Amino acid sequence: MESETFRAHAHAFVDWMADYLAHVERRPVRAQVRPGDIARLLAAEPPAHGEPISDIFSAFERDILPGVTHWQHPRFFAYFPANASPPSVLAEMLTAVLGVNCMAWETSPAGTELETRVLAWLRQMVGLPESFEGVIQDSASSATLVALLAACERVTGGAAGTRGLAANRALTVYASAETHSSIDKGMMVAGLGLENLRKIPTDSKFALRPEVLAESVRRDRDAGLLPACVVATLGTTAVGGIDPLADIAEIARRERLYLHVDAAWAGSALVCEEFRDMLAGVGEVDSFVFNPHKWLLTNFDCSAHFVRDMAEVERALTVSPAYLRTAAGDRVVDYRNRSVPLGRRFRALKLWFVIRHYGVVGLQAHIRRHVGLARDLEARIRNTPGFVLAAPRSLSLVTFRYRPDGVADAEAIDQMNRQLLARVNEGGLAYLSPCEVRGRFALRLAIGAPETQEQHVIEVWDHITRLAAQCNPAAPSAGPAGT
Amino acid sequence: MESETFRAHAHAFVDWMADYLAHVERRPVRAQVRPGDIARLLAAEPPAHGEPISDIFSAFERDILPGVTHWQHPRFFAYFPANASPPSVLAEMLTAVLGVNCMAWETSPAGTELETRVLAWLRQMVGLPESFEGVIQDSASSATLVALLAACERVTGGAAGTRGLAANRALTVYASAETHSSIDKGMMVAGLGLENLRKIPTDSKFALRPEVLAESVRRDRDAGLLPACVVATLGTTAVGGIDPLADIAEIARRERLYLHVDAAWAGSALVCEEFRDMLAGVGEVDSFVFNPHKWLLTNFDCSAHFVRDMAEVERALTVSPAYLRTAAGDRVVDYRNRSVPLGRRFRALKLWFVIRHYGVVGLQAHIRRHVGLARDLEARIRNTPGFVLAAPRSLSLVTFRYRPDGVADAEAIDQMNRQLLARVNEGGLAYLSPCEVRGRFALRLAIGAPETQEQHVIEVWDHITRLAAQCNPAAPSAGPAGT
Repeated sequence: MESETFRAHAHAFVDWMADYLAHVERRPVRAQVRPGDIARLLAAEPPAHGEPISDIFSAFERDILPGVTHWQHPRFFAYFPANASPPSVLAEMLTAVLGVNCMAWETSPAGTELETRVLAWLRQMVGLPESFEGVIQDSASSATLVALLAACERVTGGAAGTRGLAANRALTVYASAETHSSIDKGMMVAGLGLENLRKIPTDSKFALRPEVLAESVRRDRDAGLLPACVVATLGTTAVGGIDPLADIAEIARRERLYLHVDAAWAGSALVCEEFRDMLAGVGEVDSFVFNPHKWLLTNFDCSAHFVRDMAEVERALTVSPAYLRTAAGDRVVDYRNRSVPLGRRFRALKLWFVIRHYGVVGLQAHIRRHVGLARDLEARIRNTPGFVLAAPRSLSLVTFRYRPDGVADAEAIDQMNRQLLARVNEGGLAYLSPCEVRGRFALRLAIGAPETQEQHVIEVWDHITRLAAQCNPAAPSAGPAGT
Repeated sequence: MESETFRAHAHAFVDWMADYLAHVERRPVRAQVRPGDIARLLAAEPPAHGEPISDIFSAFERDILPGVTHWQHPRFFAYFPANASPPSVLAEMLTAVLGVNCMAWETSPAGTELETRVLAWLRQMVGLPESFEGVIQDSASSATLVALLAACERVTGGAAGTRGLAANRALTVYASAETHSSIDKGMMVAGLGLENLRKIPTDSKFALRPEVLAESVRRDRDAGLLPACVVATLGTTAVGGIDPLADIAEIARRERLYLHVDAAWAGSALVCEEFRDMLAGVGEVDSFVFNPHKWLLTNFDCSAHFVRDMAEVERALTVSPAYLRTAAGDRVVDYRNRSVPLGRRFRALKLWFVIRHYGVVGLQAHIRRHVGLARDLEARIRNTPGFVLAAPRSLSLVTFRYRPDGVADAEAIDQMNRQLLARVNEGGLAYLSPCEVRGRFALRLAIGAPETQEQHVIEVWDHITRLAAQCNPAAPSAGPAGT
């Protein structure tokens, strides 16, 4: 394709993109399609001959877009909302056209040195120790996997990587019962085995109970197992629980455990000093991950992974065939030795755009605004008869249940809440996701989309309260949700 | 940022992007900077207050761009060139603005169903069995890791994931001595251990010797180890060696080994029927990966991973916490269960744009053109005194050495070739990368950038031959490289 043809199409795409951002609110949040609806519109065989971009774009609008769930919608409250801010989209455009692979310093010196620098900025912004080095991973799942590998490297004195885990006693890992499923997956991927992950019970605030952790480590050691790693979570996925880092760090030091902190979502809030209580004990931490793509206005994917002893990570991951050696040798950082995939996109560029465009003050305001909206919603829920908080609000995450007077059966309440979530999401006005709190079904409402304003939170709450009555078989028959 | 502000900036970026593509040839291929040159230009601390995009963009052009190695340059011949074709850049723009996470069907039904369909297209295009299901991974490294996990799952009857590898005899894996370093890395990451990877010697064509493989498996079994997986490579990184798939498949079936095929680069060539000899035996294969981002005009990252029994992969990778369960349940594919990271970009969109825009015929022409250029270069090298092919040409990959008359010492020849590569890359006219062939240094010239034409190959060869004389201490003192 000639560059002038590209130019014309790209300008047209930009107008569509700007219109999309301006009007995404008019679309249903969750795609309103059934399984197979989109597949039916797609040819079974690849085209023999090429088509003009304009035809492909028309098919995109007509056939693909109705099947897209709109993660940038201001009433997207499911999971943790995505953060494709305009500055990060602009940076992604440059990343796409450069198409560089930041696997080694030489294959993009600027990509490497910018990655080092923006991670140093981020480290300062969230209050991590100066000695930490960083690497951008695709996701917190990958960072956690790397942390597990570094732990294996340390506790086996390097034998895990060379001789394999079969040569060792079983290694054990500890995390709270509320920890993210990526720890489970990491156990499976690293060959450690799910059964060797100890899920430590939590207290009334959904935080890991350190005395149970200490006891569990002791018991495993007595049983001849090799305790290797503890994962502390700052901001669990279901309810935003904050593990007591200082207490865990004390145990980790005493027991010589690798201490990894999963702050995938809540870590972004650390740009505000007032949320840094959770960092007490961070001086003892071995690695720390949070996702600017979750709550720091940066396009997916971009996970910031900080490590106290990067040499340990590099020992766990470095392979150096002749075809990857470069003239700069050991004088430079080759980021490929800090992550599982060899190839790496130029992700630092969007972080640089975001931090420079918003500035630290702007990013603080962004976090505080969302926390404020969640605080208002929390008050609203407390004042709405028939609704209860399922757990204390955590930063911008609120979990709740519909529990109308006169319904006591826990299973019936679960069922009503399942129905309520389904109705909310089917309607397209808003999108929430489920969770379990102490084994019972609850709704999660995570505020984090860049364009979410007070009105959107009020709208969704009014909508939920109207739909709720329809989910209560004991209620006087309510009509369809009106306006 | 207001959508109108975004619109204005994005239009300006598009003009820069089109100009970049039109004139990238005028830039030095490899960045002409020394370690630290870029870092020095970047502030040590993040800005407190935000800046307009235009200032950031000026800094990008002034401070970042000189440190970028230009992977889209028509004289980029290092590694395997990147393939950021204009249609795939256009698709990346849409992907960036949508910012969807394709982790589950519900979080983007179109993302999921399009991924399924374009992978089915690709499967047909490269001649893989109809029963294969697909998943897009970020890189072949990740696909290979997943293959190793599926092998562990199979050979231990699921115990690897639940009880961990410490509960088992050591598992062994087999690949050729020329195999990619990602297999080594996968052994380290999966907890299998580097020492349990058997590097099987190759024949004169750099292809795995099946009789040595069979013997190695037998020996390990006799020693009480558990042979689990063999990785066949179609197109090794250093010289493009093609392993004898049919023979390996025969051994894999007999020995009940998981058979993974790494065709990361050469797999794209399979869109042309005339290159499908290497697929003999593919009916026995368990998984197969190739990277459209290497040679099929698709922006990095995009790795197509095909699997015969996807349920096995899913058993090795599925975790299912309440907060990830969706209303569609088991009626749909949730791609998060086929890869290590939970979050997933909408990568199918660019594949769809590329396949529809070029069509199968267009993609075949693209591959054939590059192979033709490499064939011409091969003839040119044969006809250039003082130069030898280091290995037979493989598709569009040529490896060679400078070996002037009168120099017999192998170490001296290595040294001259190291110097030659350094001079080529330092000059900025072209970019090549190194390799070792039977332990001796050689230069790799991989043709694959979308805009590479005959003139670029002729230019680089003339340049290399001129520079070579300067690297030969025995030659009559040659002046600086002239025209």
